[in-house]
Amino acid sequence: MYLSKYIEDLVHEFSKLPGVGRKTAFRYALHCLNSKKEVVVSLSNTLKGLHENIRFCRQCNAPNDNDICEICVSRTRNQNVICVVESYKDLIAIESTNQYFGVYHILGGIISPIEGIGPDMLSIDLLITRVSELINAEVIMALNPTIEGDTTIYYISNLMKNSNVKITTISRGVAFGGELDYTDELTLSRSIQSRQPYDQLINK
Amino acid sequence: MYLSKYIEDLVHEFSKLPGVGRKTAFRYALHCLNSKKEVVVSLSNTLKGLHENIRFCRQCNAPNDNDICEICVSRTRNQNVICVVESYKDLIAIESTNQYFGVYHILGGIISPIEGIGPDMLSIDLLITRVSELINAEVIMALNPTIEGDTTIYYISNLMKNSNVKITTISRGVAFGGELDYTDELTLSRSIQSRQPYDQLINK
Repeated sequence: MYLSKYIEDLVHEFSKLPGVGRKTAFRYALHCLNSKKEVVVSLSNTLKGLHENIRFCRQCNAPNDNDICEICVSRTRNQNVICVVESYKDLIAIESTNQYFGVYHILGGIISPIEGIGPDMLSIDLLITRVSELINAEVIMALNPTIEGDTTIYYISNLMKNSNVKITTISRGVAFGGELDYTDELTLSRSIQSRQPYDQLINK
Repeated sequence: MYLSKYIEDLVHEFSKLPGVGRKTAFRYALHCLNSKKEVVVSLSNTLKGLHENIRFCRQCNAPNDNDICEICVSRTRNQNVICVVESYKDLIAIESTNQYFGVYHILGGIISPIEGIGPDMLSIDLLITRVSELINAEVIMALNPTIEGDTTIYYISNLMKNSNVKITTISRGVAFGGELDYTDELTLSRSIQSRQPYDQLINK
């Protein structure tokens, strides 16, 4: 269809990217064809170098350029507060709020019997070891508010119940700017159950 | 922000693609990070090989894998009918209709004084030479219906006026499935001016 095997191949490769269909992939391929060779080679080299150069923090599993990431070595971060997230994507989402000054722990997934993901496939042992070495630690469970997320929180908190650690979860409720009549029943009922004193809200 | 220079670089490279912002670029980069190394290397190699391997048809300028493209050498194609298009993208659009059985000529742009594109920067000489070698040729001008497109058609048809060639343009009018009250005045007025006998329409 594209007259050239090389364009065909590139369209095929681009359409493996998430949310990219053949039309968008062809648009990307055309852009590459019309760009200077150096621009395309630069993208090519960056892609090739990714897996060769990336390393994962031995403490929190975050992808970074060293043996241990800059958040885990930072002196301005509270090393006693660990925010447990499912993936790196969630870490970036929390970092971009600029409101969190503790450290992280990336589980690498959540417990999901349907998808065949058991606790042994996640970085839970490392988390337990980390926490056991701390005094007065707080573990913030920042997992997606789903059945799987709740199961994972329950599992981990059970393992930690004998250690002297404070376990919290990020608050759930109606999103800021959201509308009550469009909020699902479960969220709304939980949001009423976990209501907070007004003065606590405004003091934050 | 991304803890890793390599992820940062990849996001930067991906965001050069058309219509890709930082958020989508990060999504692509994450996908690459979570994919197997071979998948990413495959994309990398395809990109690298593009400019090295691609060739342009010496007759019609279409990007392909040989000295001359498969449309230009095809015996099932009418070599006396040349469809003039602005770019390869338009060739693909016409090919995907499966209704055209002539050959193509890619100009590589259209005359646009605002963007500084003059006739000498386009593949017009090659087209004139091609046409002069044919007997009873037809040249179909399939350029975008804009001022620049019309200027280019006017310029090329002027150069050909002494040769024995039939020059046509693709018909313009109301798009199939379109609504009259949403059609702009210029299109609608042209569409009335170039009205066709009804029996000619149904015989097609």
